Amino acid sequence: MDDRLKKQMAFALEMDKEKGIGRQTYILDALRKENDAEHGWHLALMMMVLSEYSNEPIDVSRTMSMVVIHDIVEIDAGDTYAYDSVGNATKADREQKAADRIFNILPADQAEYFMGLWREFEEAKTPEAKFANTIDSVQPLMLNDASNGLAWREHQVAASKVRERAERKIRPGSEKLYQMVLKIIDANIAKGNLIDA
Amino acid sequence: MDDRLKKQMAFALEMDKEKGIGRQTYILDALRKENDAEHGWHLALMMMVLSEYSNEPIDVSRTMSMVVIHDIVEIDAGDTYAYDSVGNATKADREQKAADRIFNILPADQAEYFMGLWREFEEAKTPEAKFANTIDSVQPLMLNDASNGLAWREHQVAASKVRERAERKIRPGSEKLYQMVLKIIDANIAKGNLIDA
Repeated sequence: MDDRLKKQMAFALEMDKEKGIGRQTYILDALRKENDAEHGWHLALMMMVLSEYSNEPIDVSRTMSMVVIHDIVEIDAGDTYAYDSVGNATKADREQKAADRIFNILPADQAEYFMGLWREFEEAKTPEAKFANTIDSVQPLMLNDASNGLAWREHQVAASKVRERAERKIRPGSEKLYQMVLKIIDANIAKGNLIDA
Repeated sequence: MDDRLKKQMAFALEMDKEKGIGRQTYILDALRKENDAEHGWHLALMMMVLSEYSNEPIDVSRTMSMVVIHDIVEIDAGDTYAYDSVGNATKADREQKAADRIFNILPADQAEYFMGLWREFEEAKTPEAKFANTIDSVQPLMLNDASNGLAWREHQVAASKVRERAERKIRPGSEKLYQMVLKIIDANIAKGNLIDA
């Protein structure tokens, strides 16, 4: 096998570890939480279905690639729960180190492309990155709602925190999905799944 | 929520079931087998890395969408193991019924698009569909090799069957990856992971 293909296959194999990175969101049968690979697949799928709701025109292909790779750094850095303030303080550092190791398994040109795509997602400034962040936040919210707020209740999450995050992560990419999410939040306060604070 | 968005969100939620559809391939820690959602994510990722090895020029975005959706029908039809000849005899019928139910959760225009993409993958005639089938077969082969042939040994698979499948599924999309796979097969015969028949 030539050197380029060898590096690419080593990276492909390394990616298998994403299937072991647990998240805080329950899948619908509510017997277990999902992992990063499942989450990434779900986002790619939702991108295909919901891209028409982006506030700005986007390159759907680039946005899909972004959601597919956005959590790869968690192979080393682990998943940081959205409402964990201690973990979030050290997240950027841990993830940069992880990106340096993992993306550099690839040949240099692809390492650079993946690194750029990941940084773009993290910075959330381009229309593609804004919408990728929108879908990344809508998906767990949809699952939380459908599992009767199981993860929210487990962590005693306040509605104000979910609203603040939706304003920051969902609204810049899609006003339409943001409005939908506000209604979902209200319904979950009414059901006692989110603390009314 | 308007009717279109309602249908799209119902479909997005239905997709969560992919995470419960088990496959026969072990993930690398070898403690459990992977599911369709994890497999779909892994394929999308490998598409980003390996598309340069397609025999013919392809629209990578379309091919990525194809691998993301290609197993959705298994939500109703279940996974059919590559080397299960009884299951494969009824596969097409079961999957067509599943496609009719599942894709039609979507608004009509998107249902038609998804159905077309799925049929294209199944027929494996376009350059995109050929290469999508290539990656769909290379991924489990890579995991089988890396897990020391665990699933192969469990099913007592003959090397000739794997070679025949590689010739049919991998070679039309990529001669380069096919040649790599032949070497992997030989190495696994030598290790006793595949039956030399």
